[in-house]
Amino acid sequence: MQIISGGVCAAKGFTANGIHCGIRKNREKKDLSLIYSSHPATAAAVYTTNLVKGAPLIVNKANLADGKASAIICNSGNANTCNANGMEIAEQMCALAAEKLNISKTDIIVASTGVIGQPLEIEPIANGIDSLVSGLNSDGSDDAAQGIMTTDTVKKEVAVEFKIGDKTCRIGGIAKGSGMIHPNMATMLVFITTDVNISADMLQKALSSDIQNTFNMLSVDGDTSTNDMVCVLANGLAENKLIDSDGDDFAIFMKALNTVTVHLSRMIAGDGEGATKLLECKVSGACDLQTAKMAAKSVICSSLLKAAMFGADANWGRVLCALGYSGAKLNVNKIDVSFKSGKGIIDVCKNGAGIEFSEEKAKEILLEKEIEILVSVGDGEYSATAWGCDLTYDYVKINGDYRT
Amino acid sequence: MQIISGGVCAAKGFTANGIHCGIRKNREKKDLSLIYSSHPATAAAVYTTNLVKGAPLIVNKANLADGKASAIICNSGNANTCNANGMEIAEQMCALAAEKLNISKTDIIVASTGVIGQPLEIEPIANGIDSLVSGLNSDGSDDAAQGIMTTDTVKKEVAVEFKIGDKTCRIGGIAKGSGMIHPNMATMLVFITTDVNISADMLQKALSSDIQNTFNMLSVDGDTSTNDMVCVLANGLAENKLIDSDGDDFAIFMKALNTVTVHLSRMIAGDGEGATKLLECKVSGACDLQTAKMAAKSVICSSLLKAAMFGADANWGRVLCALGYSGAKLNVNKIDVSFKSGKGIIDVCKNGAGIEFSEEKAKEILLEKEIEILVSVGDGEYSATAWGCDLTYDYVKINGDYRT
Repeated sequence: MQIISGGVCAAKGFTANGIHCGIRKNREKKDLSLIYSSHPATAAAVYTTNLVKGAPLIVNKANLADGKASAIICNSGNANTCNANGMEIAEQMCALAAEKLNISKTDIIVASTGVIGQPLEIEPIANGIDSLVSGLNSDGSDDAAQGIMTTDTVKKEVAVEFKIGDKTCRIGGIAKGSGMIHPNMATMLVFITTDVNISADMLQKALSSDIQNTFNMLSVDGDTSTNDMVCVLANGLAENKLIDSDGDDFAIFMKALNTVTVHLSRMIAGDGEGATKLLECKVSGACDLQTAKMAAKSVICSSLLKAAMFGADANWGRVLCALGYSGAKLNVNKIDVSFKSGKGIIDVCKNGAGIEFSEEKAKEILLEKEIEILVSVGDGEYSATAWGCDLTYDYVKINGDYRT
Repeated sequence: MQIISGGVCAAKGFTANGIHCGIRKNREKKDLSLIYSSHPATAAAVYTTNLVKGAPLIVNKANLADGKASAIICNSGNANTCNANGMEIAEQMCALAAEKLNISKTDIIVASTGVIGQPLEIEPIANGIDSLVSGLNSDGSDDAAQGIMTTDTVKKEVAVEFKIGDKTCRIGGIAKGSGMIHPNMATMLVFITTDVNISADMLQKALSSDIQNTFNMLSVDGDTSTNDMVCVLANGLAENKLIDSDGDDFAIFMKALNTVTVHLSRMIAGDGEGATKLLECKVSGACDLQTAKMAAKSVICSSLLKAAMFGADANWGRVLCALGYSGAKLNVNKIDVSFKSGKGIIDVCKNGAGIEFSEEKAKEILLEKEIEILVSVGDGEYSATAWGCDLTYDYVKINGDYRT
C-alpha cells in the first residue's frame, strides 16, 4: 500500500470542486464544495451523537436509507443548525445539486459547517451552483478540501493505492477540523471516496468499526460537535470481486481505510484550533481494549496536560492525574510514563512514582512539533492510541471571538 | 442566618495559623497551615474519586475511621502524591503536629497541595512546627487560608452564624482552588469548622449530601485532582442538643452548611486559574435532578463556551452544543437560553432556535464579572446550578509553565 496524491479524486470516477459563492464575506475563502462520482456509488456514513443535530444530518439519514449516493455538497461559514428553516435549506441544497448533476436529490449527501444558530441563506448557493458543477474536475480535491475549512489552517487530504486480487484500488479522503472536535461516533466532516467494489452493508461495517479507533480517539477541545459526520462513497470502478462478506479482501480494504482515517485524524489533531503540537498518547499493557482507550483519551483531553505540552513542561503528574480520573481500570503502582519525539525518548515515571530525569533533555524532546506520550500500565496485552493537541493562547483567541 | 467574619476560627474553640516554613522558595508565600480545636471534635470528610490518590488522603481515611479529629495540618507547594515515600511523610506530618499539640496522631487530618510527583522533604515542616503551633490564635483564619493557596489569587474564607433552639451556632470554612478543579465526590481542599453539637454519622451525612449540589457542581478545567478533600470538624461547643438524627435541627445545620459551601464554590470558580469571570449555569424545568445537573455541568465545562465568555461573545450555539452532548435527557426543541448579569438579562434562544437580539446589549451584559447562563428545558420541575469560569490567556500561561 502506498500514499498517493489526488485526495477524493484519486479513486476512479470521482471529480470535485470548491468555490467561493458568498456565504462568507471574505472572497478569498472558498465556502462551497462538491464531490461527484460519475457512477452510482454505495454509501455509508456515521453521525454525531449530540442530541442537537445539524439539519443536514437528518436529511442525510433519510437519503442514505438505501445505501446509495453519488455526490456530496458541503458549505462552510454556517452550520445550518438550530435554525427554524434548517431542514428546508438542507433539502434545497440537495435539490440544487441534483438538478445540475441530473441525478435524484436523494442521491446527494449534504453537509454544513460553521457558526450554529444563524439562518443559512440559500441565495449564494443557488447563484454558485452552476459554476460549482461546471468546474468539477479530477484535480479538484484541493479546492474541495479548501471549501470545507473553517478555522483550519491547512487543508486535510490523503489517498492510498493498494491491490485487491489483481485489481488496483484507491481510497482518498478530505477532512476539516479544527475546533468543537471530540467526536463520538464520528468526527467533524470527513469525506472519503473509493473505487472499491463493496456492498453497502460491508462498507457501513468497515466505517463503523474503523472510526472507533480513529476519529473517536481524537479530541481538540472536548466539545462534541452538532454536525460531525464521516461518509464514504464506493463506486466499484476498480472492478475487484464484490466484497459482500468478511474475508481477506475485506481485511485489505479495512487496512487501507484505516491508513486514510489515521492520517486524517492526525492531521485534524495537529491542526486543532490554536495548536502548535500534535499529541499522540499510546497506552499499552492494558487488561482490555476499553481500558486502553479510556486511558489514552483521558490523557489527550486534559486541559492541564495540554497546556503543559504547549510550555514543553514534562509535568508527568498531570498524565497520572488524567489516567486516575479516566474511569479506566488501572493499577496505579504499575504505571510507567515516557515522552518521545524526533529528539529521543525520556522515562519520567516508573511504577506510579517519579524518577530522576534530565529536565534539559525532556525540554529538548518536548519542544518538537509531534509528541508521543507513552503509557505502559502493566496489566495485559491491549493497547490504544489517541490524538490531540496542545492548549495555547491562540485557542483562547480564536474562540473568544469566533462569531464577530 | 448571617454571614460573619472569622473564617475557620469563627466557631467557638477553634484557632488557626499559617506560616512560611520553606517548602516554597518564595519567602513571601506561606506554605504551612494548622487548624486546631481545643475540644475533641467529631469529623467527617469526602475525598477525590481519582484512582491516583495523594498519600495524605490514605492516611486520613485511617485516622478518621473513628469519626474524630482535633486538628488539620496542610502544606502547599507540593502535593505529596506519586512519591515512593509519600505515606511516610504524611504520617510524619501527623506525628509532628500531634506531639506539639499533645494529642494522638490519629486525631490529625493531613493535606498537601501543589506539584505532583516531586518528593516532599519533611525538614522544613519539622523546623517550622514550633512556630506554627505557638502562633495558633483565634484571628488566624486569614493566615491559614493563605498557607493553603497555590495559584489562587485571593484567599477563600467564609463563616455564618445561626440558631439551633436558643443556642448560637457557627460554621466557617476556608478553601483553595484554583486549577485541576473538577471535583467528583469532593473538591480541592476545603476545611470547615463548626461548634455545632452533631454526631459523626449525621455530620458525614450532611457533608456527603451537600457536596453533590455544591463542590461537585464546580469545574475550572475538567481535571479531577488527585488530592481533593473536604473535611468538617464539629466540636459541640455551641451546646445545642446533640443532632443525632434527621429533623428540624439537622435541616437548619444543612442549610447553614450549604450557605458556606455555595459561597466557597463560587469563590473557587470565580478565582479559577486565569479566570476573569464567574460563570453560573442555572438549568430549570428538567424532568429529574440528574438531568438538570448533567446539563448545567456540561455547559460550564465547555472550553468553547468558556472562551466565548472570556470574549463577551453571546455565542449561545455553544450552550446548545454542550447541552446536546451532556448525556442529559432533553427535548432540544423546548430549550430556551438567556444570559444575565448586573447589567440585565437577554433572551438569545427560544425552542432550540436562535431569536433576534441586540448584540450590543448582549456585549454589555457579558462584559460583567459574574455571568448567569439561564437554561430552561421545559420538561418538568427540577433545577440545578453549576459554577465555572472563563478560559483565558492566563490559564494557558499559568499551566504552560507551572513547575518551573
